[in-house]
Amino acid sequence: MDAMEALYTTRAMRRVKTDPIPERVQKKILDAAIRAPTGGNTQGWRFLLVDDPGVKSRLAPVYRGCMETLWGSIYKDRIDAATAAPQEEESVEFMKMFRSASHLAEHFEDYPLILFAFCQYDNSGGSIFPAVWNAMLAARTEGVGSALTSVFFLQLDDMRKILGVPDEGDWHFSACVTFGYPTGRWGVAPRRPAHEVSFRNSWDGDLGLKIPEPLFSLD
Amino acid sequence: MDAMEALYTTRAMRRVKTDPIPERVQKKILDAAIRAPTGGNTQGWRFLLVDDPGVKSRLAPVYRGCMETLWGSIYKDRIDAATAAPQEEESVEFMKMFRSASHLAEHFEDYPLILFAFCQYDNSGGSIFPAVWNAMLAARTEGVGSALTSVFFLQLDDMRKILGVPDEGDWHFSACVTFGYPTGRWGVAPRRPAHEVSFRNSWDGDLGLKIPEPLFSLD
Repeated sequence: MDAMEALYTTRAMRRVKTDPIPERVQKKILDAAIRAPTGGNTQGWRFLLVDDPGVKSRLAPVYRGCMETLWGSIYKDRIDAATAAPQEEESVEFMKMFRSASHLAEHFEDYPLILFAFCQYDNSGGSIFPAVWNAMLAARTEGVGSALTSVFFLQLDDMRKILGVPDEGDWHFSACVTFGYPTGRWGVAPRRPAHEVSFRNSWDGDLGLKIPEPLFSLD
Repeated sequence: MDAMEALYTTRAMRRVKTDPIPERVQKKILDAAIRAPTGGNTQGWRFLLVDDPGVKSRLAPVYRGCMETLWGSIYKDRIDAATAAPQEEESVEFMKMFRSASHLAEHFEDYPLILFAFCQYDNSGGSIFPAVWNAMLAARTEGVGSALTSVFFLQLDDMRKILGVPDEGDWHFSACVTFGYPTGRWGVAPRRPAHEVSFRNSWDGDLGLKIPEPLFSLD
């Protein structure tokens, strides 16, 4: 697969089949992850794959609890706004995300493979998210969809206990990624154009470039 | 370029030429960045490109100050260890990184393009580093090397003042990325194998896979 296709079409893919992810693809996911850079090349990371139904069924209610907390707290205003004005473009977009994220929570135990990433020392995310994203991109090249979620941070102790994460070693939870073969189709995610969120040489400085359309499309 | 080649050969590339990065490549870098996911699809990011010699020359001494602080603090033990036992494999690897990172600091103002990424609300890094890494991967597909550095966090106020980053808006500095056409060759970065840093179903649980060699090579 062309690199641009991978970069442009790897987006949250939460509606997936229960078919298992072959070992060959699992290897590709992990081996691509560790190619990413880390601060000082410390490689202070651990990747935990979960595919055991028992472990997934213990994690699932914890995850659903986290999502409920999230919807009732930092997302409450956006849910209220979307409910009050459901026709607004912003509301439509938000509700799409809301339904998709709810789908993930409701079906947590049905994902055939779930990756947990932990990071040591560096809390900026800069030494772990390039690896996590590499894992997702490598999966994409094999037709496997993924979705990144960090909401376990709302019930860290329960999640760490289920997975047996030790207190020693300063291992911070960074990300959880679900994997699965999509039921739907791949596409390029719509985004606010880059020239509207980019500057040159100073904050608010004219970028001098316009990028009105995605530079890659599947058509 | 094949996606796997991009994922495997995008590594810190700090020795680069001063040749400018064409606008076409700059567009690709920014447009690929915004395809990455963000928590709740908030897209709370700003990208600031720096190519003005005046701005770079004001940033450079700040960056060098940060690096000196870094070498004298969290890296001090590793520098001392490497100096005491220079033949050790670990020392050799560390000194390579040390020299390369020092090269970046010494030549900060010579990089033709430098990207600063800022993120709103989410401090985990999960809503900005996939975008930053996409920018670096997209650059790689055009033969442009990059290096990710976060050390400005040691002198945030000075950096923010030079770039005019406002106090309002909750904009956190996430990453600085230098870009340039490499003077050397591309390669796959050696890493501790994935199976040594990965588990299955529980911490320390047998992964059941071995990946002794990189699954992609340039040979």
